[in-house]
Amino acid sequence: MLRRLAEELATAPGPIVVLHGAGSFGHPGARQFGLAAPPAADDRAGRRARGASIVAAEVRRLHLAVLRDLVAAGVSAASVPPATLAANRAGILEAFDAAPFRDALAGGRVPVAFGDVVPDRAWGWSILSADTIAVRLASELPVSRAIFVSDVPGLLAPRTAGPLRVVPELDETLWERLRPAPGAPDVTGGIRGKVSAMLALARSGVDAALISGLTDGELSRAVRGESVYGSWAHARPPDASGRGGDRP
Amino acid sequence: MLRRLAEELATAPGPIVVLHGAGSFGHPGARQFGLAAPPAADDRAGRRARGASIVAAEVRRLHLAVLRDLVAAGVSAASVPPATLAANRAGILEAFDAAPFRDALAGGRVPVAFGDVVPDRAWGWSILSADTIAVRLASELPVSRAIFVSDVPGLLAPRTAGPLRVVPELDETLWERLRPAPGAPDVTGGIRGKVSAMLALARSGVDAALISGLTDGELSRAVRGESVYGSWAHARPPDASGRGGDRP
Repeated sequence: MLRRLAEELATAPGPIVVLHGAGSFGHPGARQFGLAAPPAADDRAGRRARGASIVAAEVRRLHLAVLRDLVAAGVSAASVPPATLAANRAGILEAFDAAPFRDALAGGRVPVAFGDVVPDRAWGWSILSADTIAVRLASELPVSRAIFVSDVPGLLAPRTAGPLRVVPELDETLWERLRPAPGAPDVTGGIRGKVSAMLALARSGVDAALISGLTDGELSRAVRGESVYGSWAHARPPDASGRGGDRP
Repeated sequence: MLRRLAEELATAPGPIVVLHGAGSFGHPGARQFGLAAPPAADDRAGRRARGASIVAAEVRRLHLAVLRDLVAAGVSAASVPPATLAANRAGILEAFDAAPFRDALAGGRVPVAFGDVVPDRAWGWSILSADTIAVRLASELPVSRAIFVSDVPGLLAPRTAGPLRVVPELDETLWERLRPAPGAPDVTGGIRGKVSAMLALARSGVDAALISGLTDGELSRAVRGESVYGSWAHARPPDASGRGGDRP
């Protein structure tokens, strides 16, 4: 499936940036070593750094597979790992250097970043999700469209009766109604985090879509600029507070 | 062998930085796409960027193997890829950000970098060798010793009669006598480049050794501070021109 998605990305008519999550390569380890939470009071010295190394190496296994499939599909991919260009503080993104993305694009290549373990100025090491990177890049690069590819066809409406239904247009009211999943929270914020990122993108003037990667051709249509089936947060016109309605 | 060398590195008593070359993963592609030379006048647009992506992806296959073997051996390795922190101009290193190395060390991890394809402000993309990174890091971090691990037991003396002999102590006179290899030059400067890097390290106050990775235990002895069999360029006392005898 990675290979097919890489081939669909190769059809993009303009410059693109590829971000991928860590999925099953990163999330279990991130949870095991508590990288999305503050260090435990009884954390043995070195355990968090050790966990960071284990999780980051696993994430790089997936990243290499994505990179190689993109190159094989004809995309001149350039690996841009967040670990060495971003820093968090207490799990919140604090510093981000977009220059490597600009260098790759200026040199005719496609930057490929991913959800990663980054230095954390309060916790030592913590998680930076690809969703957060997408929002940040939209304020650094001239982004016109963000496409989130998932294994669901969009945001599923809260189940009532009848078949599952995809919400075509996302808004803040709907986000408020999304409850955090019961049990262990997703280390990167789950669907609530993704919807939050999409709404932030819309506020900064970027159309954001959540589409299925399982359906042949949907991604290639989306990168060519078509409005494919899925959930959308459409760019809002700038409001009185400034361009794109950025919030403090 | 990678696994054994990783286990030997795990015995280092103090903080270390690991650099590895690109070897057979990087050199043939770098030569094929001419990444160590200026772009050809008739270079088709995009060919160099495409070559950069292919070579960089291959180098990252080796890098991931090194990273995973280090983690498996108990080393808290942190990938620090040169592509996003360094830039060349016409094949010469021009900009280098050592902060990711410092962040990794401060966070209790072992930075792992490698010979890579980096942005080039004159040529688009070009090669930055691990030897050059070693010399640069010695001026950025408090380095006391640099160990170059190879598949030879040191610099072999120019062949006269009798068995091959390793030169125990390197100096400029010997470097002058080393002729560039006939035929296609090594994309990273070959043994002449390595000796040049070792002499530069010695001038900046760092002991540099070229030892064999084929002999069990040599690397572990070297990282523990022993003077193992090989070729050495010993740190020179600072001369009148300044600390470590830096040259303009």
